[in-house]
Amino acid sequence: MSQAVAMYDTTLRDGTQGEGIHFSLADKLRIAGRLDQFGMDYIEGGWPGSNEKDIEFFKAAATHPWKHAKIAAFGSTRRVGVSADRDSQVVTLVEARTPVVTIFGKTWLLHVTEILKTTPEENLAMIGETVAYLKSAGREVVYDAEHFFDGCKDNPEYALKTLEAAALGGATTVVLCDTNGGTMPSEIAEMTRLVVSRLGVPVGIHTHNDCGLGVANALAAVEAGAVQVQGTINGYGERTGNCNLTTVIPSLQLKMGRKVVPDEQMPRLRDLSLFLDEIANVNPDIRAPFVGDTSFAHKGGMHVNAVNKLARSFEHIRPEQVGNRQRILVGELSGKTNVFMKAKELGLSLDEKSPETRDILTKVKELENQGYEFEAADASFDLLVRRALEKRQPLFELEEYHVSIRNSPRRDYATTEATVKLRVNGEPCYTVAEGDGPVNALDTALRSALAKFYPAITAMTLCDYKVRIIDSSHGTEAKTRVLITSAHGSDHWSTVGVSGNIIEASWVALTDSIEYFLSRQTPI
Amino acid sequence: MSQAVAMYDTTLRDGTQGEGIHFSLADKLRIAGRLDQFGMDYIEGGWPGSNEKDIEFFKAAATHPWKHAKIAAFGSTRRVGVSADRDSQVVTLVEARTPVVTIFGKTWLLHVTEILKTTPEENLAMIGETVAYLKSAGREVVYDAEHFFDGCKDNPEYALKTLEAAALGGATTVVLCDTNGGTMPSEIAEMTRLVVSRLGVPVGIHTHNDCGLGVANALAAVEAGAVQVQGTINGYGERTGNCNLTTVIPSLQLKMGRKVVPDEQMPRLRDLSLFLDEIANVNPDIRAPFVGDTSFAHKGGMHVNAVNKLARSFEHIRPEQVGNRQRILVGELSGKTNVFMKAKELGLSLDEKSPETRDILTKVKELENQGYEFEAADASFDLLVRRALEKRQPLFELEEYHVSIRNSPRRDYATTEATVKLRVNGEPCYTVAEGDGPVNALDTALRSALAKFYPAITAMTLCDYKVRIIDSSHGTEAKTRVLITSAHGSDHWSTVGVSGNIIEASWVALTDSIEYFLSRQTPI
Repeated sequence: MSQAVAMYDTTLRDGTQGEGIHFSLADKLRIAGRLDQFGMDYIEGGWPGSNEKDIEFFKAAATHPWKHAKIAAFGSTRRVGVSADRDSQVVTLVEARTPVVTIFGKTWLLHVTEILKTTPEENLAMIGETVAYLKSAGREVVYDAEHFFDGCKDNPEYALKTLEAAALGGATTVVLCDTNGGTMPSEIAEMTRLVVSRLGVPVGIHTHNDCGLGVANALAAVEAGAVQVQGTINGYGERTGNCNLTTVIPSLQLKMGRKVVPDEQMPRLRDLSLFLDEIANVNPDIRAPFVGDTSFAHKGGMHVNAVNKLARSFEHIRPEQVGNRQRILVGELSGKTNVFMKAKELGLSLDEKSPETRDILTKVKELENQGYEFEAADASFDLLVRRALEKRQPLFELEEYHVSIRNSPRRDYATTEATVKLRVNGEPCYTVAEGDGPVNALDTALRSALAKFYPAITAMTLCDYKVRIIDSSHGTEAKTRVLITSAHGSDHWSTVGVSGNIIEASWVALTDSIEYFLSRQTPI
Repeated sequence: MSQAVAMYDTTLRDGTQGEGIHFSLADKLRIAGRLDQFGMDYIEGGWPGSNEKDIEFFKAAATHPWKHAKIAAFGSTRRVGVSADRDSQVVTLVEARTPVVTIFGKTWLLHVTEILKTTPEENLAMIGETVAYLKSAGREVVYDAEHFFDGCKDNPEYALKTLEAAALGGATTVVLCDTNGGTMPSEIAEMTRLVVSRLGVPVGIHTHNDCGLGVANALAAVEAGAVQVQGTINGYGERTGNCNLTTVIPSLQLKMGRKVVPDEQMPRLRDLSLFLDEIANVNPDIRAPFVGDTSFAHKGGMHVNAVNKLARSFEHIRPEQVGNRQRILVGELSGKTNVFMKAKELGLSLDEKSPETRDILTKVKELENQGYEFEAADASFDLLVRRALEKRQPLFELEEYHVSIRNSPRRDYATTEATVKLRVNGEPCYTVAEGDGPVNALDTALRSALAKFYPAITAMTLCDYKVRIIDSSHGTEAKTRVLITSAHGSDHWSTVGVSGNIIEASWVALTDSIEYFLSRQTPI
């Protein structure tokens, strides 16, 4: 049971079919970098034939020094009646210059006749010829058999013929897709075993969660001989989502003894999950297996008591194995260990017994109670720790800021003005600026005040801005959490601010972002 | 494969172990009534030995005319060294006057020696004697074998002895519990088969979702011979939750051909799920299998096109079978078909050849180029279509709005003031309001102006607010997309606004939200 199983991540392609999931080009590149670091074997970046953004992604990917992952471009078989080398969608796949190309083709005769409106023979030719063309262009070809299980129930011989066409064309892996997500685990197991016994090519599995079985179906296929699992982080994807890699990875590696990702990466699983949710701007599923806030949360008095005696009495793994932690819901404890681990990760050493450390712990607890989340805001956490350790002077003293936004149909656009009144080293500064919006105007006014003292500031840019309402169930107590990402060249960092007022929350994240940058430019 | 499987609902007991799940006595009675109506075979109402509320529940339940369900009281085996009839917790179970009593006992020697701190023999006596005592009091006794699978892996012979003790004591059903949720489906199947072959008593299954396998494990046990499934609506429960009955029920009945609930109840499944979320005051999981908002939502142009030709090409069941419906997401990759199908879904009929339809298509494209996304903003799309079709008058004419935000360390918090100057039916209104932030201040000023003309407006609330920067890779051209969700009772709708200025984007989403609500209150 120690055979390796390849992890094929399609968060950037199939994941974006999920409702509310959108990634910018910069998002996609950041995510791919993180997936590579985590140890994914394949990263499917997008469908270059479907949109310009994905073409740009592959341009950038072609020159990126990937550590481990192979990048895959996704597309389909050639169109009916057109040769592969003259089908622009297929040619675009070669132009993406990826080591791997994944194409999908039809397995189910219903789709061949009703959707493609062609003959069973032409469909087989479309599969075989497209795979062969991509293979001859030097690509590793993964063949995704769309609707494999529905097709196989309908007409097993034809379904197998489509796979054989792909194998004969030179496909490296043939992937069985439960596209509609309606197949039961025992059916998946039986049909996968059939294919593995009949096909001389490695078999993969691609499942969806329509019956809540995305993960179970992938595991059933692996037990039946599949050696590649396709899925997405947090199970993003069309309808109810794809197979959740965040669940499948620890199940395979920690439960079934299959080698999936490097051991030292497994404790970063929860961070990876939260990172994706933050980028996608969706609320993390607190009940997500392994990585959710409640995964190791104990509420019942009897269970809490038992866990206190012996953690494994009610915990199926140690939470730290996946970067999670035990939580007791009555009299909740803040994660002292998390603070230490995080500080260590940032290269800051804390002495457990020093008064500064106690101050930091108190501050983190206080801020978390207010709604701060440092998961995706390393720079704010870094500043918080260093402010306590290094007793640093602030960059400036604020006296007042004021933002004013005005609009009427008589204008072409809303006008925004911000004034900032502050002191730098005791010297007064009073600046005013216009902007596209309040944060931009504040940013411009603040920079214009600071540039005289800290000229390096002109080199950094504000590149992303995200807002989330927290505690929204409490009506009037709702707070706003703002996450700002800034950049200097290819270097990115993120900061967080929380307030009842979105402008104040933005101001906090903005000033942290500038302070973080300047503190790394010059020892101030 | 047509054997019936009994559904045992523990939403009211194990479900309340979930983080954030609390039910009042009135809630519990309402929920039990609804579960009975739906066709649950067993409803576990609570643990009378653990709290007063549950004792009250059973008092009320004892005189309620249940249509179908048997009510079960939950508890544990007697304490170490005390006879069952003198253990107050056990006596309380009899006093609950339910037809069924369910007790749990220890299977895993680790728990016997480390948590209970007793001998293996005393544990067997505790099980057998407690079951026999309850049986002699005329109860149907369900025996839950806590940690059965962990215990069975550790010491299969002892694990089986505990089950035999329960069977000898007179248990009607013996339920195998994967208490820690860490067991894989193939292990569940193997151990369940072993028990079914060795024990002369019907076997049930109780699973948890710690590995995302709560449902899969229950299905595996049923295939191995289990005839009772314990779980909760929406999978509420400790840590990541219990087996989700909302998923297991349609899987068993619609996919595996097992009789579970009356056919006419299945289309009420989504309502039941939403009802529970409403009572528990948790946000429905939009990606929940079968019953979630996205379960039958299609986004990719190619899939939408196929679904339009043939729904089952990308739908594993008909959404109506579980009371759900098909949704078309008008998004990034949307074609003409998406727009038509979306309008149809909203009950608006478009004539493909009319000039209004062409206008709508042009407008949608233009707005999408600006960064609008209608995928999560049905109400804005609805208004867009109806504005074109019905040539409706706007609610008001804006002359100007102005928002001002000011903060300094001298204050406790930022102050925000908004003024709104507009005309309603030609009549001028000029209002001012303070707010927690700019959007709240604008909202308050706008409502105060409109309330005079449209009093219904006071009944709606703004309940969620999301912001994204789009095209953030293009620096200065960055735009802000705001998504606002509003509510009136349990009715929710979402609107979208896009602008270079976050305040203007919020204003657009805000006014759409109000217009959508008012347009459905009164024909304006």
